[in-house]
Amino acid sequence: MTGFPIKVGFIGFGTVATGALEIMVSQERLLRRRLGRTLEISRIADLDITRDRGVSVPREILTTNVIDILNDPTIDIVVELIGGIDSARSFVLHAISAGKHVVTANKALLAIHGEEIFEAALIAGVDVGFEASVCGGIPIIRSLKEGLAAEKIKSIYGIVNGTCNYILTKMFEEGGSFEDILKEAQALGFAESDPRLDVGGGDSAHKLAILSNLAFGTAVSLKEIYTEGIEKITPIDIQFAKEFGYRIKLLAITKWDEGEIEARIHPTMISEDTLLSKVDGVFNAVYVDSETLGATLYYGQGAGSLPTGSAVVSDIVEIARNIMNGSSGRVPPASFVASSRKSRRIRPIAEIESLYYLRFTVSDEPGVLSKISGILGSYNISISSMIQQGRQVGGGVPLVMMSHKAKERDLQFALAEINRLDCITGETLLIRVEGEDQS
Amino acid sequence: MTGFPIKVGFIGFGTVATGALEIMVSQERLLRRRLGRTLEISRIADLDITRDRGVSVPREILTTNVIDILNDPTIDIVVELIGGIDSARSFVLHAISAGKHVVTANKALLAIHGEEIFEAALIAGVDVGFEASVCGGIPIIRSLKEGLAAEKIKSIYGIVNGTCNYILTKMFEEGGSFEDILKEAQALGFAESDPRLDVGGGDSAHKLAILSNLAFGTAVSLKEIYTEGIEKITPIDIQFAKEFGYRIKLLAITKWDEGEIEARIHPTMISEDTLLSKVDGVFNAVYVDSETLGATLYYGQGAGSLPTGSAVVSDIVEIARNIMNGSSGRVPPASFVASSRKSRRIRPIAEIESLYYLRFTVSDEPGVLSKISGILGSYNISISSMIQQGRQVGGGVPLVMMSHKAKERDLQFALAEINRLDCITGETLLIRVEGEDQS
Repeated sequence: MTGFPIKVGFIGFGTVATGALEIMVSQERLLRRRLGRTLEISRIADLDITRDRGVSVPREILTTNVIDILNDPTIDIVVELIGGIDSARSFVLHAISAGKHVVTANKALLAIHGEEIFEAALIAGVDVGFEASVCGGIPIIRSLKEGLAAEKIKSIYGIVNGTCNYILTKMFEEGGSFEDILKEAQALGFAESDPRLDVGGGDSAHKLAILSNLAFGTAVSLKEIYTEGIEKITPIDIQFAKEFGYRIKLLAITKWDEGEIEARIHPTMISEDTLLSKVDGVFNAVYVDSETLGATLYYGQGAGSLPTGSAVVSDIVEIARNIMNGSSGRVPPASFVASSRKSRRIRPIAEIESLYYLRFTVSDEPGVLSKISGILGSYNISISSMIQQGRQVGGGVPLVMMSHKAKERDLQFALAEINRLDCITGETLLIRVEGEDQS
Repeated sequence: MTGFPIKVGFIGFGTVATGALEIMVSQERLLRRRLGRTLEISRIADLDITRDRGVSVPREILTTNVIDILNDPTIDIVVELIGGIDSARSFVLHAISAGKHVVTANKALLAIHGEEIFEAALIAGVDVGFEASVCGGIPIIRSLKEGLAAEKIKSIYGIVNGTCNYILTKMFEEGGSFEDILKEAQALGFAESDPRLDVGGGDSAHKLAILSNLAFGTAVSLKEIYTEGIEKITPIDIQFAKEFGYRIKLLAITKWDEGEIEARIHPTMISEDTLLSKVDGVFNAVYVDSETLGATLYYGQGAGSLPTGSAVVSDIVEIARNIMNGSSGRVPPASFVASSRKSRRIRPIAEIESLYYLRFTVSDEPGVLSKISGILGSYNISISSMIQQGRQVGGGVPLVMMSHKAKERDLQFALAEINRLDCITGETLLIRVEGEDQS
């Protein structure tokens, strides 16, 4: 193999870095066979450089000082894997201004400061790789930027959070409660000790901001993404979904509609006939519907040391190929050339149209159904099917309805009115349903 | 947008070319926004330049003479979409030697002359794009070459022929015979009037030769790929598969095992719990198992004018990006750099190990089971489950067995012996079963 090695510095030596480094060490020969050049691990910076991560890297390349990487003129590629926002942003921008290429798995950083980072990279003429930031090793970033280069994206539906999908799968298969299965997932290492970012949908929103940006050529800010987690889903909802032929998944949804964009995260009922409904456990999948290609789906492990590490290394290889060919910046970081990106209105959730699953908790008395359906009717919401279960323990019985297509704003007004009725004895749950209206 | 347009010449104006041209025309603005440069359709050569294909291209760019493209020094990229082998090979090599980049959807050409074409491209320093040759618009070629750059591939299981998958899906859903559903598929345009290349597995073998080459860095010749079609599958086999919890799919399978490669096309039973078993109708999917990433799956439409055309245009965009950056050849055409590719032994089918579904047609008399199981046992083949159905019309009753893992050679010897028994009154059918041995 000819040519100088490509030198890589790692900032952060946590789970993902360990995976990426393990791959660079164990697959060194394979990488050389594909690249025609050696990748050299030059430096690894972390606050803790004593703990054994089980990867064989020379002790002398470890440092506690990030500056040893950022100011090393021989380092070509800086891999940022410390997570968090402010330090990560500062290190990434520093590396870029020093003319170094950057690889990052930091979805929060990109969701919040992506525009600034991409612009800095364009000015400096360096590459920013972030395949690892969305769905780990599934090559979805690359597919959107290159495989689907000729495609006008119409919509994306993603299962992009393994923790939520694990919990919902277990609730479906074993019938336990959200709280119990979350505890079990934490014990097994499938959920963080502070699970809010995962189960509350925030992590999915970070990823959706990135996907939506690449798909539509526009910045999507986090605060414009409607975000609802899976905490309120109960075993009874899973059961009702099953009876209607649906599965409940936490979906990251983005759609293009007449120049405006929908971007939302919420538990969603999807038909059990869809492939996406069969993506179970910690697996991720992204379903893309585009103009001329139609449906495509990308499936794999969205998290974990090695799968995410693999995506990091694939970015290192891509950037190395650009370095070797003097073609850094050949693909615009945000998929569209900068001058062609446009600001688009992100449609508020009140303006979407959807089918809805509604579960009311009502007192078991005559006239309840007529009151509720009367209010729904007055807001032009019509019901396609209904299940009223027998008497339950506790303060009421569940009354479940599936609506035809309705406007979210109308529905929210109707629910506010319904929830004030005396016969409503518990919290009302709404789950959006994706799919065609059968009426 | 700055810079000269990238000029593209099309050889062939059939279904796929029409799709690609329609996309280049209708998505012209989108392509410019992603590429930052204009793609110009310079010339289209076809024997028939009078038929209206419904795409608006200027009449004066049509020609019946391929030389108008091959000898035009202004054309950057030649798109070969005439199909067939000899003329296509000659045009592609001519274009390459004239310093032009090539895009082709011609799987047969690449399966047979891929090595020669890739070598010529390397010498000439031009790119060869062939995303459209395998599974239409699904970005599987790109994913193997770039997304999975850090991955040692262990195995690939692909549903890569839409015609076969359509027929098997219909047989499963509606219970009709292979012959009837083939006729129906022909009437609907889902099968060719001469369907042998599809239903006999030859088309899948072309695609597998390409996938296997990219995955393992070695040439795989067509004649080394064991190829068996779906013609012998009967409704009764579909039914038995269902009873055992399996679905029957025509799979393109390639595996890496201790430095040797398996490459085979045959009807395969896979568990109904797998995502691949749920890929229905004309859809394609490729399941890849790799060292550190584990399972990934890529799903979409594998054929058709627009989906395949989209893959052609994605290659044009990729090559245009290389032209704009002076980085042609940045990714080796066959995924590994030429000097790192190695000749590998392709394991003959007799040497594989598998689970087997065996359907015997036997006379309804005592002792049959003991004779058959005796012979199987003498070849070390043990049976995990068995179904003996009641009396049938015709010359015998079906006796179905599922084996534990066995060597194909042993099985073939055993079947030869069994088939000579007097109690065997019809043809014996063997279907390989992929999955874990449950014993």
